[in-house]
Amino acid sequence: MEASEKLEYVKRYINGVSAHDIEAIKAIFDDNATVEDPAGTDPHVGKDAICKFYEQAFSVGVKLELTGPVRSAGNAAAFPLVCTVTLGDSKLKIDAIEIFEFNQNGKVQLMRAYWGEENCSSE
Amino acid sequence: MEASEKLEYVKRYINGVSAHDIEAIKAIFDDNATVEDPAGTDPHVGKDAICKFYEQAFSVGVKLELTGPVRSAGNAAAFPLVCTVTLGDSKLKIDAIEIFEFNQNGKVQLMRAYWGEENCSSE
Repeated sequence: MEASEKLEYVKRYINGVSAHDIEAIKAIFDDNATVEDPAGTDPHVGKDAICKFYEQAFSVGVKLELTGPVRSAGNAAAFPLVCTVTLGDSKLKIDAIEIFEFNQNGKVQLMRAYWGEENCSSE
Repeated sequence: MEASEKLEYVKRYINGVSAHDIEAIKAIFDDNATVEDPAGTDPHVGKDAICKFYEQAFSVGVKLELTGPVRSAGNAAAFPLVCTVTLGDSKLKIDAIEIFEFNQNGKVQLMRAYWGEENCSSE
């Protein structure tokens, strides 16, 4: 899979999540994909569970924005981003790094997000 | 392992590589660690192979600099960086993202670096 294709997928993901477009999510992830967000927690496995996870994020007004170049290597892409969600009157900003691993059908097989408490700030 | 400890390891790594300090490398990685740089290529397995890999990088004047916050999650840390090496008269800059996975002894068990051609520029 070419780096340019992976970049295109990442852009569709960033825009799709920010637009709360569940069809974009369905188009990006493999039926049996795994989403681990943050890394080390119980993963969301399969498209239904993944859609539910993103719909929960939509319900708190999630927006994603890239904060640096997408890095492409092997079957994977890695990218830094800021994720913003609205909780009551305040906005929570999370500095994260996400990894996509693609399968041979050009779908995302694994998404793993790296972030911790110290990467969160409210405004 | 606390986020602050992982952050400390990442700083020792960034400074150790930039200072061409092989003892720092030996102190950070587990004896049986794996380094995959970039992701998808044949890994360097075990401390001897890993030291050889970093010594090659030292020989081309490698310097590392963090370009954003270290993200800590589960047993891992992820961080964006610029890697600079000197090839003849020109400097090559590589925008990368690296992942460390730590083992229970607090050593790095796996390092995986994400970067591709499109993340390289010369000056």
